[in-house]
Amino acid sequence: MSKTLTHLNEQGEANMVDVTEKAVTQRSATAEGYIAMSTQTLEMITQGKHKKGDVFAVARIAGIQAAKKCGDLIPLCHPLMLTKVQVDFEPELENNRVKVTSLCKLSGQTGVEMEALTAVSVACLTLFDMCKAVDPNMTIGGIQVLTKEGGKTGHWERQQQC
Amino acid sequence: MSKTLTHLNEQGEANMVDVTEKAVTQRSATAEGYIAMSTQTLEMITQGKHKKGDVFAVARIAGIQAAKKCGDLIPLCHPLMLTKVQVDFEPELENNRVKVTSLCKLSGQTGVEMEALTAVSVACLTLFDMCKAVDPNMTIGGIQVLTKEGGKTGHWERQQQC
Amino acid sequence: MSKTLTHLNEQGEANMVDVTEKAVTQRSATAEGYIAMSTQTLEMITQGKHKKGDVFAVARIAGIQAAKKCGDLIPLCHPLMLTKVQVDFEPELENNRVKVTSLCKLSGQTGVEMEALTAVSVACLTLFDMCKAVDPNMTIGGIQVLTKEGGKTGHWERQQQC
Amino acid sequence: MSKTLTHLNEQGEANMVDVTEKAVTQRSATAEGYIAMSTQTLEMITQGKHKKGDVFAVARIAGIQAAKKCGDLIPLCHPLMLTKVQVDFEPELENNRVKVTSLCKLSGQTGVEMEALTAVSVACLTLFDMCKAVDPNMTIGGIQVLTKEGGKTGHWERQQQC
Amino acid sequence: MSKTLTHLNEQGEANMVDVTEKAVTQRSATAEGYIAMSTQTLEMITQGKHKKGDVFAVARIAGIQAAKKCGDLIPLCHPLMLTKVQVDFEPELENNRVKVTSLCKLSGQTGVEMEALTAVSVACLTLFDMCKAVDPNMTIGGIQVLTKEGGKTGHWERQQQC
Amino acid sequence: MSKTLTHLNEQGEANMVDVTEKAVTQRSATAEGYIAMSTQTLEMITQGKHKKGDVFAVARIAGIQAAKKCGDLIPLCHPLMLTKVQVDFEPELENNRVKVTSLCKLSGQTGVEMEALTAVSVACLTLFDMCKAVDPNMTIGGIQVLTKEGGKTGHWERQQQC
Repeated sequence: MSKTLTHLNEQGEANMVDVTEKAVTQRSATAEGYIAMSTQTLEMITQGKHKKGDVFAVARIAGIQAAKKCGDLIPLCHPLMLTKVQVDFEPELENNRVKVTSLCKLSGQTGVEMEALTAVSVACLTLFDMCKAVDPNMTIGGIQVLTKEGGKTGHWERQQQC
Repeated sequence: MSKTLTHLNEQGEANMVDVTEKAVTQRSATAEGYIAMSTQTLEMITQGKHKKGDVFAVARIAGIQAAKKCGDLIPLCHPLMLTKVQVDFEPELENNRVKVTSLCKLSGQTGVEMEALTAVSVACLTLFDMCKAVDPNMTIGGIQVLTKEGGKTGHWERQQQC
Repeated sequence: MSKTLTHLNEQGEANMVDVTEKAVTQRSATAEGYIAMSTQTLEMITQGKHKKGDVFAVARIAGIQAAKKCGDLIPLCHPLMLTKVQVDFEPELENNRVKVTSLCKLSGQTGVEMEALTAVSVACLTLFDMCKAVDPNMTIGGIQVLTKEGGKTGHWERQQQC
Repeated sequence: MSKTLTHLNEQGEANMVDVTEKAVTQRSATAEGYIAMSTQTLEMITQGKHKKGDVFAVARIAGIQAAKKCGDLIPLCHPLMLTKVQVDFEPELENNRVKVTSLCKLSGQTGVEMEALTAVSVACLTLFDMCKAVDPNMTIGGIQVLTKEGGKTGHWERQQQC
Repeated sequence: MSKTLTHLNEQGEANMVDVTEKAVTQRSATAEGYIAMSTQTLEMITQGKHKKGDVFAVARIAGIQAAKKCGDLIPLCHPLMLTKVQVDFEPELENNRVKVTSLCKLSGQTGVEMEALTAVSVACLTLFDMCKAVDPNMTIGGIQVLTKEGGKTGHWERQQQC
Repeated sequence: MSKTLTHLNEQGEANMVDVTEKAVTQRSATAEGYIAMSTQTLEMITQGKHKKGDVFAVARIAGIQAAKKCGDLIPLCHPLMLTKVQVDFEPELENNRVKVTSLCKLSGQTGVEMEALTAVSVACLTLFDMCKAVDPNMTIGGIQVLTKEGGKTGHWERQQQC
């Protein structure tokens, strides 16, 4: 872990990290987040006639597309050629929320955790958009990196809070 | 509030709401969220020589730019001509987090809460990106709509949880 | 109908039509197209366990998103604020193809047939992408405008060929 | 050729194929399509004073630019760094149409036929846009892959229909 | 003319001007710039067999497209629906340069001089790209606003230097 | 240096150079430009309470983001995965202008001078946007490549004019 903010230079100015010399290695990252909603809303998108509806399909595509746009959204991110983006949804009825997880992979010079976080965030935003007419009080949270593989650091896993 | 998911049709297929006939009115929305980080990270971006550094400036621009891209990120959002986007940051030292708020305005046919949420989300993601080298365990959360003005609904305010 | 190419000036140079003075009216356009595939491929995406799979959902989202990007794809198209985009799929088992139709609406100064055509084209391309591993010989065709409403011309309907 | 839809997982959900482990090889693909128009329209863009006009130049640029945007348009396509895009036009006076062909090349991990098809499609749409004022009854069709080179499959050529 | 920087707030933070209350009026702006090149390069793109070549056609399209992307390129610009973009080229053999001019029009709430400047800049960059293999020493300059019409200010014309 | 325009084919049509066979080498390019403004404007953005304001931070981000979009802005540029973009500002009080310099780096198959020029151009445009309310007579100029490294040509340096 770095002890200084790599994204600022000595003058405190925005600094895109130079990865020109970094080795091309296989990298991956997983991230998660959730969107909390009312019991009724959650039922609406997981049960009954819409059970196989397009809600999660739309959010999945939005998340995948957003991962590919990460370098356009996050100013100091490098443009990357992702080799895999996966977005999954797990309705947690007992918690009144949908858990969203993502996996991004790359054979390249820099990590992909921002891509994974972006996929989760935009998938959650899309679920919000699709349900907001019935439930404007939803909350998106718990967005964090779970694991990272590859690069100089090798395997990294989020410290569990207890 | 609607009783059915306006973003699905009768067959459960994705449905972009038709706003052709809606009146053009002044609309606005505010949203908030936060990014939780370690005490050291928070100090690094709020105190000392980087106090006036580019961290928040970069995140603010990212949030503003993302609001303008909302229709490109969220599949069923309409393209809009935002007339104002504002993104603000409030470091909360006692909570080890930065609170991010946004305001979006429009003279148009549909609400702008998705734009406000997108601005907050991408501003948080950008803060994550800029600090991740020193603190990969950060969490983004509490992303929600605070208020909405304009349109058929008029004033709407998020119900406070207690 | 015009007798000269409005998109070229007197010198034969590309010319974006000036719509500044045009009235804001409600406009709409519908378009269609199809993608022809083998019987087996068509069965794969319309029957059995994948019957309600994501194939059409993904293509629908791609079509909707593409309509919104029309002004970025077609050089002389004006940027527009579409108020409605709809993309539908009708498997035609007897013709070994999927028919794709789209509807675009706008309250604005220029027609939306290019947006409707773009939605159909990209929805077809997405179906191609999703099925190409099993059927690389597919063909996309029959892309044409069906109807236009609004603007100076009023109602327009494609002449049927006989 | 695959026997299952690689772009859906076991649950019928959209699936971006993982190409992380694929070798980087030189790949290319060619595609074709056409836009059918009236004799008068075809003459207008191929003869007389506009013979060397901007019509094909504009459509060529639109096709090239669209190929570069393929990963943004087609949800499950990987972002790629195309090393060559070529778009050509051949007016077929006897068939009342313009034939459009494209070639895409890449040194990468996945095929480029979707990029070639996208280039052809958007070039056709641009020709439609530029001629629609004089000929709204045009039709775009015959969009198909002609050849593919590189990758595990090696040389692939479209089966001719007879 | 303002006496303070409208694009910074009291704290010196980036500020997108709020145009929600501004009247919708017809607005236009013209801008110019040039690219200086060697005599040989200028001859290459203006004379001989390439006289009617695609050089200016490509740069024109690039300029038009860039004007439409202005709100995506310039962080505090509002997204706009341009109703007209025009880009023209005038080779000045005596000055060894190509003069580029642009006109942007809009029926909207804010001025379009940034769009006109962006069109000129990207048209010049495209000419640079197309000629750089033969002349890497070219220079782009003289990019400035010529006139503005509409809005509260009404007619504005650049002060001539003498 | 080439003796013919590589970006046109024999017919004078736009031609994207084929770099498929080119070696992947480390490449870099630097470019510069300036924006001339009144003494008062320059003081406003470099002195007093706004000294550390967001003006340069916003323009820096805009420049970095624009470099990443170069392939989308300049029609015949290849999409690239930049490994470093840097944009710097040097107020020249004696010349009443701000000098803008950029550095782009890449491990790839083609040069990055267009990316460096694009970063400078858009950074200048952003400064123009942020100051135009107080000083609409500004001029952007002197945009040129300073150095290039890597590729077949190796080191290249702009010829100084005297």
